Order: sequence, then structure tokens, then C-alpha cells
Amino acid sequence: MFSQSQGRAVRQQLRFYSSANMSVNLEGNIFVTGTNRGIGLELVKQLAEKTGKEAHIYACCREPEGTSAEALRGLATQYPGKITIIRLDMSDEDSILTAVQAVSEQIQTAGLNLLINNAAINKPDSLAQLSATGKKDMMEVYETNVAGPFLLAKLFHTLLQTAAEGHTSEGDKMSCRRAAIINISTIISSIEKCPETFAQAKMYPYRTSKAALNMLTRCQAEDFKIQNILVTAIHPGWVRTDMGGEQAPLITQDSVHGMLNVISSLSNKDSGMLLDWQGEKIPW
Amino acid sequence: MFSQSQGRAVRQQLRFYSSANMSVNLEGNIFVTGTNRGIGLELVKQLAEKTGKEAHIYACCREPEGTSAEALRGLATQYPGKITIIRLDMSDEDSILTAVQAVSEQIQTAGLNLLINNAAINKPDSLAQLSATGKKDMMEVYETNVAGPFLLAKLFHTLLQTAAEGHTSEGDKMSCRRAAIINISTIISSIEKCPETFAQAKMYPYRTSKAALNMLTRCQAEDFKIQNILVTAIHPGWVRTDMGGEQAPLITQDSVHGMLNVISSLSNKDSGMLLDWQGEKIPW
Repeated sequence: MFSQSQGRAVRQQLRFYSSANMSVNLEGNIFVTGTNRGIGLELVKQLAEKTGKEAHIYACCREPEGTSAEALRGLATQYPGKITIIRLDMSDEDSILTAVQAVSEQIQTAGLNLLINNAAINKPDSLAQLSATGKKDMMEVYETNVAGPFLLAKLFHTLLQTAAEGHTSEGDKMSCRRAAIINISTIISSIEKCPETFAQAKMYPYRTSKAALNMLTRCQAEDFKIQNILVTAIHPGWVRTDMGGEQAPLITQDSVHGMLNVISSLSNKDSGMLLDWQGEKIPW
Repeated sequence: MFSQSQGRAVRQQLRFYSSANMSVNLEGNIFVTGTNRGIGLELVKQLAEKTGKEAHIYACCREPEGTSAEALRGLATQYPGKITIIRLDMSDEDSILTAVQAVSEQIQTAGLNLLINNAAINKPDSLAQLSATGKKDMMEVYETNVAGPFLLAKLFHTLLQTAAEGHTSEGDKMSCRRAAIINISTIISSIEKCPETFAQAKMYPYRTSKAALNMLTRCQAEDFKIQNILVTAIHPGWVRTDMGGEQAPLITQDSVHGMLNVISSLSNKDSGMLLDWQGEKIPW
């Protein structure tokens, strides 16, 4: 999607920007899914580093006690009192209910300011052809990538509304400081751009799930706008993670730095959109 | 979506067109799902009526012997030797495998010329709010509306390829006479148009499934273009069926008449598109 040299130029540009702008304009209670590695882990790291004392991060993963969550536990120790690790399996409705209940009891009347649906799976794998892809892959990927975020938003709706009502704002009524849902999508969710991106990554289950997630985003944006809850989908760029592979031009730090800058600046006009990590609009 | 008077104008225009053009340019083996009522039943009726002797229609429904398939059985009797009724439950992988096997044995080296994925469900119901919609609705609607068409296309791929290879064509290489998949979508699958259509029909599970079906359409169009298999999604209009309700401006006959005219005229440039029953492009 990018050439190596484009990737380098982007990194240099971001490093410069990074040193000039170390904080992000976010606050309150922030709930992030899929935080034991990759983009999710980096989101928690930069959120802990760049937000003020009044921010609290609920960082979810499937196995908080397992070795796969070691780095996340390290972050919680590094920022005492700022990060609560929550057990959450997005494919399991009971697990979602339990996580929402635990967080609701902690934050109560303060409400939830920001829900970031980052957890996602890709099956069978990035290079799989149609012949190697089955119904089970289609169903499991949709369950985690779409039904999970659907349920979380539904169950957190009241707490998002509480946060929106308790917030007074000047100018635009919507922001990620007030009450917002960010659905982490991907450029390969774009049906319009499918002819450009298909050959590199066929991934039927992942593509169909992310197009559905975009529709979910736009439905939620319509449904929740009367309550001033902002809902936006964001493409993190092609990032060098387990999912993105080693060829990816962007490193996780730069992608997350870009996304947090974009998230910090979102307002009414961005609700119901699909934006990339630099704030550029992507067609559906 | 349409006013009553727009609906009337459309009907008058189509009636005129209908009397002037009674046949459709389709042939060979045609497989249609969800044919015991509504649009599917009317598709079988008009296909039987308007195609020549060399066309054969495989008409699928869940319960071929039940009272719900009475009208379909009547059509099979009315057009002897032209319609084969096939048992098919799109939510059941074994049922899909059995149906594909039965049809494969019958058509063998002739191949499959046209697969019309018409069967679809909507849960919990058209007027349901978010609070009344659960994970089960999300999963079941996706299973029938997306995983089902995904599997059918995958399993019929070889037979579609056979039909494409056995067909010599002048000019454009793709057509619904040669080898094609038509996925019946809807205007409310359009993420772009969601702000216009959301208030009338919230339907989270249906909307997300149909946006995913559009992505499936575009992926298949890319994947199968080298084999000259055309893949297009079509919006039938807002039709007075069990699903469309009594307020709908279009009657089933006119919608199907329009769609068959559009389907008859599709070529290379239409593969991977979302068109309405009059051939107009709908944005993703």
C-alpha cells in the first residue's frame, strides 16, 4: 500500500511532529479492547503517557494473567492507579457482560467518555485463498469484529450518555473528551478501493467483517447523534504488527501517535466517517 | 424512500415497457435461492415465462413439500420440465452442500450460467430498536445473508467456470448468459446513504449483513474476473412483500421485470457494482 521510501518519509515527518506535540487532548474514562499487543498495547502506553491525572484507562485482553499480557501488566505497574486491566473475550457474550458490569461499578455516575473497539481477528490467514476459507472463518471473524463491538456499544450506551450529559462544551457538541466510540477499521474495509487492495490480501472473512463494522459505525453515529455521542471509524495505516506483517511501512508507535492526534481533534463533522491515522477521509 | 406518486409513475412507466418487451436475454442453467415467495417466486415465474427452451431453472426453498411452497410447486407444474425445485436452507452448511451436489449431478459439463442469491432474512424485525436487538440476531442474519452466498459461490465456482469456458462471446466477455453471480442487496446496504435511510429502518443486523454482502460481491468480482465470471449486486427497489411491508411503492412484478431487464444487459463494466432495479448505480 505504501512504498518503503514513502514509509520512511512518513516516519521522519511523524518523529518531528512527535517531539513537538507530546500530549493528547483526552480525559475521563477510556475503555480499550485487545490491548495485550500491537496497536492496542501501544494505545494504552501512549494514552497513559500523554493524558492528565483525571484520565483512567480500562485495558482489556483475553488472558490478563497469561504470558501474552506481560507487557500490559508492566505498563499498569509503570503508571500506578492509571490503568485497570480487564478480562474480555469479544467472542463470548458472558465475558462482555461481565466486563461491562465490572467497569460500570467502578465508574458509576462519571460515565464512559471513550470506547475504542480495537480487538479484531483475521482467519484463516492473510494469504489464504478462497478455497482455504470456510463458513467457520466467516462466522468467527464476524463474531469478534462486528457482533462484539455491536454488543459493547449497546451495553455501554447508558454510560456514554451519562458522560455526554455531564459534559459542557463550547462550539461543537461532539468530541472524544465528551462521549465517543472509535471503531478501529482498515483501508481494506473500503468496498470502493477493493479493486486496488484485493490482490495483496484476499481475506474474505476479514474484509466482509470490516465493511460491516463501517456500516455499524454509520448506524451508531445516526442513532446516537441526538445524545451527542460521536462515532468514527479509523484506519491505523498498514502497521508492522503480527497482523500487518514485516513488509508494513509504518511502525506501531507512529500509527498510534497519528491516531491519537486525529482522535483528539474529532468533532461533529467527523461522526459517521471512516478516517485514516492522519485524518484523511476514506471512501466507503 | 419513494413517495406514493413516484411509485405510481414508476409503475405506469414499467407497464408500458413491459408490454413492449416481453422476453429477457438469459439462457442455460439458472439457480435461484429463496423462491417460495416474494421476489424469489416472481423471479422463477418471469424466468420460466420469458426464457427460451434451452433455459432451466433450479428453484430453491427451505421446505419444498410444505404449504409455503404451494405456489412454487404450481409454477413447476405449469412449466413442465423447465423448473426443478431444490431443498435449501441457507443457514445450514450440509443443506448447501447437498443442494450443490444434486444440481452438479444434473448439469454436469454444461456448467452453471447464473446464480441468483435472493434468500435473505431480517431479525428481529423491521421496526426493532437497538435495545431489542441481540447478538443472536446479528449472527443469524449474517449466517443466512452473507455466509450462505459466500459458500454457494465457492461451491459453484467450478461449474460457473465451466459455463464461462464453454461460452464464446463477441465484444464484452462477461454476461449473465455466460457465467454470473447476482447478489440481491438493498439500498439500505449503502453506508453512504445511511443518514438518509436509517430513521425509517434501523435494522442493525440486516444493514451490517448487506454491507458485508456488497463487499463479498466486490471481492468475488475481482477474484473471478480472470475467468470471465460477472458478479453484480442489485437493489430490487422498495417492494410490497412480507419484508417490504404494505407501504412500499413497488409491486413485486414490476421490480422483477426491471431487475431481469437489468440482469439481461449487464456486461464487463457492471461487474463489482451495486445497481438498482432500473440499472442506476448506488454508492457504497
